[in-house]
Amino acid sequence: MTSTQTFRAAVLGASGYTGADLIRLAARHANIEIVALIAKAHAGQPLAKVFPHLASLDLPSLVTSDEVDWDGVDVAFCGLPHGTAHGEIAKLPERVKVIDMSADFRLRDLDTYAQWYGGEHGAPHLLPDTVYGLTEHYREAIADARLVACPGCYPTAVLLALLPLAKGALIATDGIIVDAKSGVSGAGRSLKQNILFSEAGEGLSPYGVGTHRHVPEIEQELGQAAGRAVTVNFTPHLVPMTRGELCTCYVPLAGGTSADDLRQGLREAYASSPFVRVVDEGIIPATQHVRGSNYCHIGVFADRIPGRAIVISTIDNLVKGSAGQALQNFNVMHGLDETTALEQLPLFP
Amino acid sequence: MTSTQTFRAAVLGASGYTGADLIRLAARHANIEIVALIAKAHAGQPLAKVFPHLASLDLPSLVTSDEVDWDGVDVAFCGLPHGTAHGEIAKLPERVKVIDMSADFRLRDLDTYAQWYGGEHGAPHLLPDTVYGLTEHYREAIADARLVACPGCYPTAVLLALLPLAKGALIATDGIIVDAKSGVSGAGRSLKQNILFSEAGEGLSPYGVGTHRHVPEIEQELGQAAGRAVTVNFTPHLVPMTRGELCTCYVPLAGGTSADDLRQGLREAYASSPFVRVVDEGIIPATQHVRGSNYCHIGVFADRIPGRAIVISTIDNLVKGSAGQALQNFNVMHGLDETTALEQLPLFP
Amino acid sequence: MTSTQTFRAAVLGASGYTGADLIRLAARHANIEIVALIAKAHAGQPLAKVFPHLASLDLPSLVTSDEVDWDGVDVAFCGLPHGTAHGEIAKLPERVKVIDMSADFRLRDLDTYAQWYGGEHGAPHLLPDTVYGLTEHYREAIADARLVACPGCYPTAVLLALLPLAKGALIATDGIIVDAKSGVSGAGRSLKQNILFSEAGEGLSPYGVGTHRHVPEIEQELGQAAGRAVTVNFTPHLVPMTRGELCTCYVPLAGGTSADDLRQGLREAYASSPFVRVVDEGIIPATQHVRGSNYCHIGVFADRIPGRAIVISTIDNLVKGSAGQALQNFNVMHGLDETTALEQLPLFP
Amino acid sequence: MTSTQTFRAAVLGASGYTGADLIRLAARHANIEIVALIAKAHAGQPLAKVFPHLASLDLPSLVTSDEVDWDGVDVAFCGLPHGTAHGEIAKLPERVKVIDMSADFRLRDLDTYAQWYGGEHGAPHLLPDTVYGLTEHYREAIADARLVACPGCYPTAVLLALLPLAKGALIATDGIIVDAKSGVSGAGRSLKQNILFSEAGEGLSPYGVGTHRHVPEIEQELGQAAGRAVTVNFTPHLVPMTRGELCTCYVPLAGGTSADDLRQGLREAYASSPFVRVVDEGIIPATQHVRGSNYCHIGVFADRIPGRAIVISTIDNLVKGSAGQALQNFNVMHGLDETTALEQLPLFP
Repeated sequence: MTSTQTFRAAVLGASGYTGADLIRLAARHANIEIVALIAKAHAGQPLAKVFPHLASLDLPSLVTSDEVDWDGVDVAFCGLPHGTAHGEIAKLPERVKVIDMSADFRLRDLDTYAQWYGGEHGAPHLLPDTVYGLTEHYREAIADARLVACPGCYPTAVLLALLPLAKGALIATDGIIVDAKSGVSGAGRSLKQNILFSEAGEGLSPYGVGTHRHVPEIEQELGQAAGRAVTVNFTPHLVPMTRGELCTCYVPLAGGTSADDLRQGLREAYASSPFVRVVDEGIIPATQHVRGSNYCHIGVFADRIPGRAIVISTIDNLVKGSAGQALQNFNVMHGLDETTALEQLPLFP
Repeated sequence: MTSTQTFRAAVLGASGYTGADLIRLAARHANIEIVALIAKAHAGQPLAKVFPHLASLDLPSLVTSDEVDWDGVDVAFCGLPHGTAHGEIAKLPERVKVIDMSADFRLRDLDTYAQWYGGEHGAPHLLPDTVYGLTEHYREAIADARLVACPGCYPTAVLLALLPLAKGALIATDGIIVDAKSGVSGAGRSLKQNILFSEAGEGLSPYGVGTHRHVPEIEQELGQAAGRAVTVNFTPHLVPMTRGELCTCYVPLAGGTSADDLRQGLREAYASSPFVRVVDEGIIPATQHVRGSNYCHIGVFADRIPGRAIVISTIDNLVKGSAGQALQNFNVMHGLDETTALEQLPLFP
Repeated sequence: MTSTQTFRAAVLGASGYTGADLIRLAARHANIEIVALIAKAHAGQPLAKVFPHLASLDLPSLVTSDEVDWDGVDVAFCGLPHGTAHGEIAKLPERVKVIDMSADFRLRDLDTYAQWYGGEHGAPHLLPDTVYGLTEHYREAIADARLVACPGCYPTAVLLALLPLAKGALIATDGIIVDAKSGVSGAGRSLKQNILFSEAGEGLSPYGVGTHRHVPEIEQELGQAAGRAVTVNFTPHLVPMTRGELCTCYVPLAGGTSADDLRQGLREAYASSPFVRVVDEGIIPATQHVRGSNYCHIGVFADRIPGRAIVISTIDNLVKGSAGQALQNFNVMHGLDETTALEQLPLFP
Repeated sequence: MTSTQTFRAAVLGASGYTGADLIRLAARHANIEIVALIAKAHAGQPLAKVFPHLASLDLPSLVTSDEVDWDGVDVAFCGLPHGTAHGEIAKLPERVKVIDMSADFRLRDLDTYAQWYGGEHGAPHLLPDTVYGLTEHYREAIADARLVACPGCYPTAVLLALLPLAKGALIATDGIIVDAKSGVSGAGRSLKQNILFSEAGEGLSPYGVGTHRHVPEIEQELGQAAGRAVTVNFTPHLVPMTRGELCTCYVPLAGGTSADDLRQGLREAYASSPFVRVVDEGIIPATQHVRGSNYCHIGVFADRIPGRAIVISTIDNLVKGSAGQALQNFNVMHGLDETTALEQLPLFP
C-alpha cells in the first residue's frame, strides 16, 4: 500500500550513529517529515556540524527535548543510550508513537533488566504494552503498537536465523553456541580507547565473553519459542570494519532433521519477508553482501560433527540491526509498504 | 520534471565495479528497465553469482553482446575497459543512445589518444558528435547528445574544482599541481598484485607519477577554458580504502584574487547544481562526507605561500566519478529531473 | 646456548609471503647465512624487485632450484605451495636439513592426504622420518630430525590451545567447535578475486565451511592425544586485516573440571615455553597483542552453557603460524637458544 | 663500535604510542636497562595493563616522576605531549641525558614557539644547548649533546628529502609544496572523535590546512640551509592506516638542475647513512616498504611542469619519525653503532 500522508517525526539521540542512520534513511521517506532533532549535548548546533555528510539536508538544528513542541510530533524515533531512553520516552505525550532503538524496553522481565543493565527500570508501566520489534516475527502486534522496542543488532541477526528453527522444533535449544562478529560502529560514537583506529584496526578481539548484554534478549525470545528457559553461548568479536555483523550459530539438530530441513524451514518462514534472503546451498553469506542495506542473508551448512548444523546470518548492524528495522516498523505501524525508503541495494564494493 | 516513461537499458561490462554500481542505482530508477547485462567472460551466469549483493534483483543473466536483441534497447551504459569500449560501441545501432563510462571517447584529439592509450582509436567517426559528460558544465550539449563520454573519476573531481576558476580567470593556469588520492576500487576488479588486500592495506603508495592517463583529459578541458595549452602536475596515490577520491589542488591565483574570491566564484558556478556543494570557510572536505553518494564537496583555503591557494574536492569515485554521473547524464538526456535515482545520502559511518 | 657457527640456508618459494617473512627474520639470525633464494617464476630478478621492503639486504638474486649449488647448503626452508613442495624436497640431497612450511608433510596418513589435497603424495618415503613441527610439543623429536613439517597456521593456534587439555584429559574430545578468524595474508600472494582489497576490505566472510584443509591436521593431533578418532567443527572466517589469527574454541569439559583447571593445565604445559603466554583470568587475547611476533596468547573462559568452556588463542599467522615457527624449529634442530632471531616484540599500534 | 656498557633509562610518557614504541625497541637494546616507566595517569598499573603486547617484558610498573630515584638513571626518553615536556625535563638532574620526542625543544625561536604552541616556553634556559635530533644531519652535535630534541615525524620525512637539496642549492626554496599523508597513530592515543575507527576508517581527510605545527620546524631548518626565511606549503592528510607517513614534495629546480641531479645529490648526502635509502629511478616509495622499521626511502621524479621536480619520502612515523630516531640518537650520544637495536626489517605484508 502506498500513501501520500505525511507523519511528523522527532529523532531523540540525533548525534549518535543510529540517529544519523535513521535521519539518512528517513529524510528520503515519502511519508516522513523530520520536525525535530534532539541531542542534548549538541543543542544549538546545525546538523551539518555534527554530521557533515548530511549537510545537504534542510533540517532544523539540534535541540533539547524540552525545546520541542510535541503537539506537532506524530512519532518519535529514539536512538539514546540504554538507561537514558526509558526516562525520556516516559515523558512523551501518549499520542506520540515511539520506536525505540535503545535496549530499555527489550526485556520483559524487570529483574533481568536490573541484573544486566545495572539498575531499576525507569518506566515499568510502559513495558506491558511494548512490542518487541523484530518485524518479521511480530508484524501484527507491531501494526497496533504505540511503543515498539527494536531488537539489538546481534539479537536481530541471531533470532532471524534461529527463531523459526526453534519454533518449528527443527533444532534443540540446548547447547546453542553463537560466535558473533561485529564492525566497530556497533560500539557507538562515544570515545573509548579500544575503538580508536590505531587500536581496533588491523586486529581482531573478542569482548564481553559470557557477559554481553544481548544475551538475555536472545534467551528471552528463544526461551519463549522453546517453552522453557534456554541458555546460549554468545561470544562477540570486534572486527576491523565499520559496518556489518555476522553470526555463526552452531546448533544441535532435533532428532532426524538435517541442514536441508533447516534451510527449507527458514525459506517457508520468510516467504513473505522481502528483506530476509535464505541463500542457496553452497553460497556463503558475507557482510559485504548486505552492507548499507536492510537485508539479512542466512545460510545453512552441515556440520562435520554429527547431529549439529551451522547457521550463518549477516546484516548491516546500523540498518537492519537498528535504523532500518526502526523504519520498517514505522512502515508496518502506519500501514505503509514495508519496504518504503528501505529499497537501497547493498553498497559493494 | 518527473515522467512515467520507461527506457530499456543495456549494461556493457556488467561484471566490473562500475557496471555493478550502475546496476545498483539503475535498478531503483523509476524510468529505467534493465533488459540486458553484457559480460563476455561471464556469459551464461546469473548476476547473483558475479555480484551476490545484487541477488535480490530479478534481472536477466549475463550474456554476450551478440545475444542481445538491440531492437529492444533504448540506451546502453558502457562500463568496459578502455580500448575495448570503442569497438563495442561502434557496433551498436544508431538509435541506441550511449553513455560511456570508459576512457575511449573522452579525448577529442586522436594523436593524444594514441599517445596515452597505446593504439589507434577504433571509432574516430563517432568522436565529432560525442559530448564530454561532465554534467555540470555541459548540460545543454548532453541533453541533445547520442553519445556521452563520462569523465574519468579523477578529472571529475579536478575539473569540478578548477574549471569555473579557469573560465572565470580567477586562477592562472601555469603551475597547477594536483595531488590526488583514490580508494582501491578505482583500480577496477581485474587481478593485480598491488591491489591485493595484503599489499594495499595499511599503506599508502603513489603510482603513475607523471604518467597517469587522466592527465590529458584534465589538460584538454583546462586548456580549452584557458584558451591555450596547459600543463598540470598530477600525482595520484593509492589509499587503503575502497571508495572515495580526494584531490588537493595547489593553484596560482590570478593577480589580485583571494581564496574568498575563488570560493565565491565556485558558489556562483554551482548555484543550480544539486550535487556540487562548496563548503563554508573552515570546513574541510573528506571522502567520508560523500561516500556512496553522487555529491561533490569543494573547499577553498588560503596557502601560506603568497599568491597561491588550495582547492580541495572530493567525490565517491564509483558514483559521481562514474556510475552516478552516468545516470545523471541519462536524466539530462531524457528530460528527467537530474537527481532521479541519485538521491541517496552519503553512507557514514 | 649461544653459538658462533653459521649455517648456510636456501629458501624455496622466496617470492611468497611465508618466504618473505622467513627472509625478514633469518636475515637477522646470527647463525644463518642466506645463500640461495629460489623462486621459479621470478628467477633472475633481484629480491628488491619482488619485495621492495627487503631492498636493504645484500642477498643473491632469485634463481631456480637447478641453479643452486646444493653442496653449499646446510638447510632448506620451504615456503612452496602444497602439492609442489613434496616434489622439490624429494630432490634435495639427504645431507640438507629441511624445514617445510607447506602442507605436504603434515599428514601421516597417505589416504587422508590424497582425500584432502586431491592427489597422491609425491614423496611417501620421506614421511616416516618426518617430524611434525609444533615446537612446544615435539621438541625432542625436532632436535634430531632431518625433515620437519611445520604445522599450518590454524592448527598451530588450535593445537597450542587444546593439545595439553586433550593430553591431560581436562576436556572431552567430542563436540569441539573451533570458530577461526584469519587475516588475509593467510591466503597467500597468488591472485584471487576474493582477496582483492575492494572485496575483502570492510567486510567479514566465512569460507571453506566444513571443508578447510587444516581440519585433518587438527584431528590427527587431537586424535592421537585422545587415543581415538576425533571429529571437530572448524569454521574459518576471512577478516579485513593483513596479519593475525584468532581461534575461539568451544570445548566440552571433562567431568568435574572447570575453566580454572584448564588455565592451570595450560600454564603447567607451557612453563618452559618462552613464546606461549597463558593470560590471566579476565584478560582477553587479541591479535593486536601478538602482531609481528612469535608469541601465542591463550585465554580460558567459563561458558554460560554448563559443562563447557571457551579457550581463545591468537598468533601472527606468518610468524608463529609459519616463518617464525620454522626458525624456532631451526634453532631447536641446531642446538641454539629457541628464541634466537625471534625476540622481536609485537608491533602495536 | 659495540660495547657491553649498560645505560639505565627512564621513559616519560610510557602510556602513549611513542612511549610504547620506545619501550618495544629499547627492551631489546643490548646497552639499555629500562629502570623506570613514568605515566602519571596510570601510575601504579603494570605495563601489561596499559600495553598487553608488552606483557612478556619483565619491567617495573608505571610510576609518577616523583617516585623515580633519578640517581639511578642515566638517560631519559621523553614521550610526553608538547607543553608538558618542557616542565618535566626542566626538573631532571643535569647529569641525566635527555632525548625528547615531544615538540617542546624543536624550535629555536621563542616567539615562534609561543605563536604555534599557544604559550610561553617553560624552560628557555635549556634551548641554547639543545641539539635538533635529525640524526643524519646533526651527528656530531648530537654525539656531544645533553638534550636532544627529536624532530616531528613530518619534519623528519620532509627534511631528509629536502635538506641536502637546499644545502646543495639544487632546488630553489621559494614555492615548495609538501602534500603530506600520515597514518592515524600520528594523532596519538588521546581520545578524539575524528580518530575513532568508524570515523577515520574507509576515508581520507585533510586537516590543519595551512596551520599544522610542524610547519615552523620545517621552515626553520630549510631557512637555515637557504640562509634566509623560507615559506612552505604543508598540507597533511589523515590516511586509514595505523603506521606510516609519506610526503610528496613538489619543488622548484634551481636553474639548470634535473631530477637526476637531485637523486645524485641525495645519494651523496646519505652515502654513510644506513637508514636512508635513495631508491632507483622508476621505483616509487611506499609506506609499506618501511613499516615498522627505522628506514626512510626517498625517490625523485621529473615533473610534467618544466622547472619542477617531485621528491617523495616515506617513513614509519612511530619509528624513524619518533622512537626509532630517538634510539638512533641514543646510539650516537653513547658512541654505539648507530644501528644498534634498530636492525628490524620492515614488516610486510
